[in-house]
Amino acid sequence: MPAKIDIPRKSIYRLSIYQRCLQRLRENRVDTVSSAALAKAAGVKSTQLRKDLAYFGQLGTRGLGYNVDALSSTIGDVLGQNKLQPVILVGVGNLGSALLRYGGFRKEGFEVAAAFDLQPRKLPQVTVPILPITEMEAFIRRNNVKMAILTVPASNAQSVVNEMVRDGIQAILNFSPTVLDVPEHVVVNSVDLAVELENLSYFIR
Amino acid sequence: MPAKIDIPRKSIYRLSIYQRCLQRLRENRVDTVSSAALAKAAGVKSTQLRKDLAYFGQLGTRGLGYNVDALSSTIGDVLGQNKLQPVILVGVGNLGSALLRYGGFRKEGFEVAAAFDLQPRKLPQVTVPILPITEMEAFIRRNNVKMAILTVPASNAQSVVNEMVRDGIQAILNFSPTVLDVPEHVVVNSVDLAVELENLSYFIR
Repeated sequence: MPAKIDIPRKSIYRLSIYQRCLQRLRENRVDTVSSAALAKAAGVKSTQLRKDLAYFGQLGTRGLGYNVDALSSTIGDVLGQNKLQPVILVGVGNLGSALLRYGGFRKEGFEVAAAFDLQPRKLPQVTVPILPITEMEAFIRRNNVKMAILTVPASNAQSVVNEMVRDGIQAILNFSPTVLDVPEHVVVNSVDLAVELENLSYFIR
Repeated sequence: MPAKIDIPRKSIYRLSIYQRCLQRLRENRVDTVSSAALAKAAGVKSTQLRKDLAYFGQLGTRGLGYNVDALSSTIGDVLGQNKLQPVILVGVGNLGSALLRYGGFRKEGFEVAAAFDLQPRKLPQVTVPILPITEMEAFIRRNNVKMAILTVPASNAQSVVNEMVRDGIQAILNFSPTVLDVPEHVVVNSVDLAVELENLSYFIR
């Protein structure tokens, strides 16, 4: 599906948010939703919503809005093609071990296949195998892993990333407080909790 | 400093990232940096960087680039005015307790003053007081807390937010997988880990 390359990253990101809103509507037995209502639920302008959905052709019916099930399954087809991907987590410190305990990934169809650390130790309530980082390359190649969650200290982040990219990782969710240098074909989404707080604090009166 | 209202949110967000890069340059004893080099380190276009920094007037010297210390302290003045703000965390589940153990906030000048939960229990290695949610309102008002980290289940998120906003919270870092409805004067940054992964997975070949 090479066409997907033409959809802007930010639109793809918003599709995930629309999908979450549609799931809530389905849970509440709502059949149709106006673009205005869905946009408000997703926290975007309705012009933005219609623009994003237009990439898949005309999905709504003027006056009637969108059929919730139909729109949800269309977006699911677009986003879902890589669901049930194996994901590895590298760096089992406080944040890393928390993410291993955190159920939120599985719910969305992602399974953390293994975690890696310099000094692996068993964690209570964690079933994911925690392996020495020296075994990362073999694991990535054997299981054809393409996605990684990075929770190592900033000082190690770039060297770990260089290694995992060499081994075949194409997408990285980066929690290390540093900006990563990666090749063109690798996508990085960074979540910097301190930056988020700093940004929020700016807006306080 | 009402002028700050005129700076776009996304620029403010990038300032935090530039600041992090500048801190690394200072650690490495680098005195000056070109806009191209700083932009690359921050993962933005240098036109974007110059546009962001132009909000504070001409900071660079053509040909010489930016003085690292000067730029860093200017950005620090802009962003830092609300540092050492007390922050509360609401919802001490897996993710919430991890964030309480996580050192990354303090490093950036934020102190989690207290955490709240329906069933508070003491956590090993956690010094932050964990209080019953019934005490949240009094705590927010007494300590004039303006910032909150939200790590409650999606089902409770909106009602907890309504309460904290009534009590005086103006900025929320939301980890609950839901879109929050807040008044104009309240800022929400949402971090949805599953959405981040879903978004990444789309770009895998």
